[in-house]
Amino acid sequence: MRKGFFQHPPSDWPPISIDTIREAQRRIQPFTHRTPVFRSRTLDRLASRDGVERMLFFKGENFQKCGAFKARGAVNAVLSLAEEEARRGVLTHSSGNHAQALAYAARLRGIQAYVVMPRDAAPTKRRAVAELGAQVIDCEPTQESREATAFALAQKTGALMIHPYDQPAVIAGQGTVALELIEEVPDLDAVILPIGGGGLAGGVALACHGLGAGLRIIAAEPELACDAFEAKQLGRPVPQKAPRSIADGLRAPLGQWTFPLVRDLIDEIILISEEAILNATRLVIERMKLVIEPSAGVAVAAALGWGHKALDPSLRRIAVVLSGGNAELPALFGNQV
Amino acid sequence: MRKGFFQHPPSDWPPISIDTIREAQRRIQPFTHRTPVFRSRTLDRLASRDGVERMLFFKGENFQKCGAFKARGAVNAVLSLAEEEARRGVLTHSSGNHAQALAYAARLRGIQAYVVMPRDAAPTKRRAVAELGAQVIDCEPTQESREATAFALAQKTGALMIHPYDQPAVIAGQGTVALELIEEVPDLDAVILPIGGGGLAGGVALACHGLGAGLRIIAAEPELACDAFEAKQLGRPVPQKAPRSIADGLRAPLGQWTFPLVRDLIDEIILISEEAILNATRLVIERMKLVIEPSAGVAVAAALGWGHKALDPSLRRIAVVLSGGNAELPALFGNQV
Repeated sequence: MRKGFFQHPPSDWPPISIDTIREAQRRIQPFTHRTPVFRSRTLDRLASRDGVERMLFFKGENFQKCGAFKARGAVNAVLSLAEEEARRGVLTHSSGNHAQALAYAARLRGIQAYVVMPRDAAPTKRRAVAELGAQVIDCEPTQESREATAFALAQKTGALMIHPYDQPAVIAGQGTVALELIEEVPDLDAVILPIGGGGLAGGVALACHGLGAGLRIIAAEPELACDAFEAKQLGRPVPQKAPRSIADGLRAPLGQWTFPLVRDLIDEIILISEEAILNATRLVIERMKLVIEPSAGVAVAAALGWGHKALDPSLRRIAVVLSGGNAELPALFGNQV
Repeated sequence: MRKGFFQHPPSDWPPISIDTIREAQRRIQPFTHRTPVFRSRTLDRLASRDGVERMLFFKGENFQKCGAFKARGAVNAVLSLAEEEARRGVLTHSSGNHAQALAYAARLRGIQAYVVMPRDAAPTKRRAVAELGAQVIDCEPTQESREATAFALAQKTGALMIHPYDQPAVIAGQGTVALELIEEVPDLDAVILPIGGGGLAGGVALACHGLGAGLRIIAAEPELACDAFEAKQLGRPVPQKAPRSIADGLRAPLGQWTFPLVRDLIDEIILISEEAILNATRLVIERMKLVIEPSAGVAVAAALGWGHKALDPSLRRIAVVLSGGNAELPALFGNQV
């Protein structure tokens, strides 16, 4: 049997088969985009080193609904709810892409979304969530306040928590990225994804495993938020220590459902410096004319060999998931000369 | 006969038939991109007013080679040269997209390009041209110095001037945008283009006229560089007076070949304020995740009804040419809070 193939999945994996992910694809298809795949000769050239010619295939999740892959997981989770569950509304705490995605999904279903956001969240993000009809509830900018506020709100309203990543329906939704990629780009050797909480990486890894796709799954993680790297080395989840990366989508720690997938299905994790994240993000924006956020730039940096280790020379046809496009452009370009 | 259709073109039009443009398309096809067409529900909604539902189709010339439609005209012009002409090299004065496009075209043909650039041109643009193998020659930042330096260089080297817009092979090349658009998007009511020197607008207007496409050709021009608007009103070319628009690709005046096309084939010109240019440019970057330059934002603003006059209610399916993506992002986003 092929190395790394699990005929019987370990008992701590989330209950997600390839059929679960295909079902998620059918469920979300009318409400999400099948995103385009982009090529760039400039970036192919930069990724080709030491006599190895590489071709990069960029999956444009920055063009996804609400500007990030998160719409897939949120829509799948909300549309999967039974009618009597859905009626109570849904809830999350997030200042990022999941907040918008959940608001969007709730509006589709015609139910109320509650989003707990720290007081210091960017006004544009707050407005975007409110414009989608969600109720925004303020909290203090600490993890404790977020969780306590969300818990109190759940008690009061009965709304169901839809976690940004550590929930099987969310992970299955993110896995649909892989179904599209593998259908569209033949003979891939590897896929590179950014990793934060592990919803995207876990879902894509499960889909590739389920399809027997036989490609290498590489996660790229900021050096300044490297709990997944450490967790994989130690074989157990570790807390995220004061993450400070500009890749704000990747500051979350792995969860109970996502850790086992990282442990068993992610082939390697490449660490990326803040400087490499910034350079890769700006490169894609300036040369490819695609707006991406720094979290997506983390995966690009790994593909270009700018991480703590180079890519294996056997990897030539490589998919890179541009996970989102909700960049704070003034922060990215405001300080340049 | 249909209003505005010229069976015998006026004698001052450039010698370009629909077959000339089709020939240009065959010539440039291996070396340029057939650019994608994008949609956006958000922008459709913003363009729909007073009970008129509009659909916008954005032609992504920001993804063209060298980041702008200019590659079409330059490649067509350079590849059209006879062998003994080509051998002498090609020459232009430009600090913008045409400079890069000409350098690219010359490299394709294996001949020397000379580009006269003002000393104060952005270092990134200078580098981009030099990286493509062109020789960059400095001049003072005045129109007189540009022309004098280019003239002296032509005398010395024998290189042929390839004008940024006022040359039939260049206009024919730009017209290929229309062939792709009309093939890809059925039943268009109008196409909106930015206008500067008139190469793009003239080429597209000629192609639409030649095809008998029967759609309205609308040019969008900055209020601060509005010579085409005035020329069309007066029925004669007028000089461009100290243009100051942020849309730096649109500061050039109409030329001898392009003026008659604007006079006869452009249905209307809509003037756009600097504020509307900035807002439209940022909107496309932030919401559509596409990097465009302010010159392209001018056309977007017109499509959204942000110009000095609204669009006719009969226009519902509208193509908007995103002419280029070479934006100075620090200038666009650096001063925001």
